[in-house]
Amino acid sequence: MPITTVGLDADDTLWHNETLFRLTHARFVALLAEHGDEALIEARLAETEARNLRLYGYGVKGFTLSMIETAMELTGGEAPPSVVREILAAGREMLSHPVETLPGVDEALAALAERYRLVLITKGDLLDQERKLAGSGLGELFAAVEIVSEKTAATYRTVFARHGTGPEEAVMAGNSVKSDVLPAIEAGAYACHIPYPVTWAHEVAEPPDGHPRFGALSSIDELPAWVAERA
Amino acid sequence: MPITTVGLDADDTLWHNETLFRLTHARFVALLAEHGDEALIEARLAETEARNLRLYGYGVKGFTLSMIETAMELTGGEAPPSVVREILAAGREMLSHPVETLPGVDEALAALAERYRLVLITKGDLLDQERKLAGSGLGELFAAVEIVSEKTAATYRTVFARHGTGPEEAVMAGNSVKSDVLPAIEAGAYACHIPYPVTWAHEVAEPPDGHPRFGALSSIDELPAWVAERA
Repeated sequence: MPITTVGLDADDTLWHNETLFRLTHARFVALLAEHGDEALIEARLAETEARNLRLYGYGVKGFTLSMIETAMELTGGEAPPSVVREILAAGREMLSHPVETLPGVDEALAALAERYRLVLITKGDLLDQERKLAGSGLGELFAAVEIVSEKTAATYRTVFARHGTGPEEAVMAGNSVKSDVLPAIEAGAYACHIPYPVTWAHEVAEPPDGHPRFGALSSIDELPAWVAERA
Repeated sequence: MPITTVGLDADDTLWHNETLFRLTHARFVALLAEHGDEALIEARLAETEARNLRLYGYGVKGFTLSMIETAMELTGGEAPPSVVREILAAGREMLSHPVETLPGVDEALAALAERYRLVLITKGDLLDQERKLAGSGLGELFAAVEIVSEKTAATYRTVFARHGTGPEEAVMAGNSVKSDVLPAIEAGAYACHIPYPVTWAHEVAEPPDGHPRFGALSSIDELPAWVAERA
């Protein structure tokens, strides 16, 4: 089967994202230090985020709301206004933070774009992801951009049918085994895991080592050659 | 030219939305009644929303964050925790509020779907719009759904090219002259304005009365016949 289409995740695959979340977490822990130690505060925030996911979905706006809610919980409903203002400011800073592409991304994408149709497939806030793509300077390399509320096998089937020649002739690459690899393979596509130094707890999963359509890469530099070997 | 494709706005075109925002506004005004009269509070909230639009985009999550920010402004940065908790709760209620389709929508869409490809084109939070579409029971009638960060002429050109046979053979229908009518006509499509009793201040604009590709309807009931007359 030829490969015609390469899907790429955005956050932590093309540019830094989780590091920015971690910095905001650290700021949140410091703000609420009187009300618990780091482990407790992180655990409560993770619970709030998980509970709110079906309501807020992914992205910075929902994360900001979850931080305010967690601050209320940790203070018995009495989070001081200064804490709420700090959280609002932290969210706004995340949404206006400059995009930093990861090493090797420009070269790998330029090489891939010469031979395959590139499709950006990402979760998160619509406007924020569009802003980051524009800021990355990578927009021109993509034939299509799909910002989705969840990455399931059905998502990959639909997207690779719409923008390519179906999942069987597509490769999906990203840093999340749970969102980028497992559902893409389930859909019938190839999938490459390209690790990022930190992974959001919600996205951790076992990689399908040994699966004939799975590639465990150590960096995006290896992606063009890996795809060429399948084609 | 035949008409092949009908684009439909969602909020306040297919189901109630602005009335829910107005109820939340009223609740917000009541919460902050000590700090200003209705006109002042509404004006400050509108300013905050307008300022945050480039950062938050459209939808309930950004609206909730803007309410908290406005509460801080109106109280000299000292909004009581109870006010913040109430605003968080109001936002969550909006996001879980049952969808109520507008009168005549089911019949009009069923008639249109027999002859044209229907495309839902809407702004707002990704997950929230998907939830409302699922709750409306109208999902099956649409060939495609596009949740976009802004509705410009370029948006309509792209969407009607992707899901139809180009804007020249498409009709866009919705309650916002600014977002549904003017940019669709600019893109070369036909456009129908279907008014909703209340319009968000940000969406108010002059209708292009007399334009040969514009229709001013009084209800969605009239849409199938209007489209049939163009075709």
